[in-house]
Amino acid sequence: MTTMLTSLHRSRDAVEPALRKAVARLDPTTRAHASYHFGWTDADGRATSGNSGKAVRPALALLSAEAAGDPEAGIPGAVAVELVHNFSLLHDDLMDGDVERRHRRTVWTVWGASAAILAGDALLALAQEVLLDCPSPHAPAAGRLLAGATRELIRGQVEDLAFEKRNDVTVEQCLNMAAAKTGSLLSASAAIGAVLAGAEADVVDALTMYGAHIGLAFQLVDDLLGIWGDPEVTGKPVFSDLRSRKKSLPVTYALSQGGPAARELAAWLSNPDAVSEEDLRRAAQLVEDAGGRQWAATEAERRMRLGECALTAVSLPEGPRAELIALGRFIVNREL
Amino acid sequence: MTTMLTSLHRSRDAVEPALRKAVARLDPTTRAHASYHFGWTDADGRATSGNSGKAVRPALALLSAEAAGDPEAGIPGAVAVELVHNFSLLHDDLMDGDVERRHRRTVWTVWGASAAILAGDALLALAQEVLLDCPSPHAPAAGRLLAGATRELIRGQVEDLAFEKRNDVTVEQCLNMAAAKTGSLLSASAAIGAVLAGAEADVVDALTMYGAHIGLAFQLVDDLLGIWGDPEVTGKPVFSDLRSRKKSLPVTYALSQGGPAARELAAWLSNPDAVSEEDLRRAAQLVEDAGGRQWAATEAERRMRLGECALTAVSLPEGPRAELIALGRFIVNREL
Repeated sequence: MTTMLTSLHRSRDAVEPALRKAVARLDPTTRAHASYHFGWTDADGRATSGNSGKAVRPALALLSAEAAGDPEAGIPGAVAVELVHNFSLLHDDLMDGDVERRHRRTVWTVWGASAAILAGDALLALAQEVLLDCPSPHAPAAGRLLAGATRELIRGQVEDLAFEKRNDVTVEQCLNMAAAKTGSLLSASAAIGAVLAGAEADVVDALTMYGAHIGLAFQLVDDLLGIWGDPEVTGKPVFSDLRSRKKSLPVTYALSQGGPAARELAAWLSNPDAVSEEDLRRAAQLVEDAGGRQWAATEAERRMRLGECALTAVSLPEGPRAELIALGRFIVNREL
Repeated sequence: MTTMLTSLHRSRDAVEPALRKAVARLDPTTRAHASYHFGWTDADGRATSGNSGKAVRPALALLSAEAAGDPEAGIPGAVAVELVHNFSLLHDDLMDGDVERRHRRTVWTVWGASAAILAGDALLALAQEVLLDCPSPHAPAAGRLLAGATRELIRGQVEDLAFEKRNDVTVEQCLNMAAAKTGSLLSASAAIGAVLAGAEADVVDALTMYGAHIGLAFQLVDDLLGIWGDPEVTGKPVFSDLRSRKKSLPVTYALSQGGPAARELAAWLSNPDAVSEEDLRRAAQLVEDAGGRQWAATEAERRMRLGECALTAVSLPEGPRAELIALGRFIVNREL
């Protein structure tokens, strides 16, 4: 764990100067909003030694390039995936009405909706600009990979918003949405460094699969934490996702199983008044009784193994392969 | 005029199949919202023979490729600039609170803010995907051009929103904002076809300058129409920009001139109650008396000539050069 944090810090130290240089190209207003969002400044523009997040996507991108034998080639890719990730955070926070991120007010709550829309737009455009400015002959392929992942990311958010209003979402549809919303950019992050380094197709494919599998495993674990996570660790109230009646993966699975627990859970979900601690504890028990908890944990484990198999099946240098696997486990298992 | 409309229709016929094919890559929900926005379907998804706008940017992109000797090369560029233009319309309509566009309800009023944000995001990402998918070895250069223009477009909207709250904007700042908001994408449109066709730098530079000049000329004329345009032709109420107290280019120029007319105009602008037909007529007269109308008309004419000079100073085939100049005049002079 400590080693992993050291490795994440090392990767952040390698990427952050390039990320700041890219953001410095934006107009002063947008630059100020983006710098606040990244945790570099406070709302008055004063430099902070803040928490910019774990930056796991840039770390994946750097290891991906290292796995392909050219660590330096990964930097523009690392910057680009972090820009796309933060574009989506800026817009999603607004659409989801989230007022806090990493214990700070979100951009739209500080400067309004237009500021968040424009800052997100600017980061998305900048991601492609950074990639296409880099001297690698493989930059266009990396740009295509990133644009496709962005299209999937948007599909995921579109479906997530639509699913909130539906009661008939299947487990398969829910997994497919998570693959788009969470998996696509992690997958692109795990592959983009290798693409920029000119790796063979089999290596790029293996890294793509690895990222997609850990993306889904991450989402399954995130959904488990949304119900059973320790509030001290997650920073969210206990039973958080049940309070908001979120039809997350374990809940959707439980509902799909039929039987008395599933039926009682469905009835509870449609009753917005049952929000006492006891109601929530009962609902969590129903998800567990209908098999949702066990399924999600097993499925997360299975995806992790599939990802690791994909990495083992191609020829990669041992160091980067081991670091990729360790990073994947760190991403997935975080607070569990 | 009729010839120009024929030429615009010809260009739309050449580009629209590729544009529709690109939009078909989006998820069904986003595709439906985008298809409505483009005027291809109604709000229920039924095909319409609607008005998709004049599509002057794709027409510029095609002529730009033709000027460089390879008309076919311009198509992905034409699709990409039209996608970026419509990304900005979707987001700007939401930020500006505009409820109608081309006599139809805007996407955010039909499906909500999130739909407009996501559809805009999707078109922006798709623009780069279309460019980078095309086989031209110059696609990355075109992608860079487009990403830079998008950054400028966003700066323009950021400044436009900020200027609404200020009373001290200079003519120079206002021109600089218009160059970003209106000029940057018209400039990229006029150059992108030539870039994709592999034209020499002097040709690309001339086309870039041409597009930037007609962009500013267009904005100056648009601002004149916002005050003195015929409501029958513009589709907006008479004195439209004065009603909304918009500090457009002629108004900003008039205010900068000092003297009694400028002082009376400044006083009128700060009085939100003076909105009678007579008040508005008086305000328009003050803009004219302080020289704003004459300046804007002269400046638009000057920009047009500068653009045409730029085109004349490089070696271009006569046909495309003449068509570019005719299209520029059509864009600028529209309803005047």
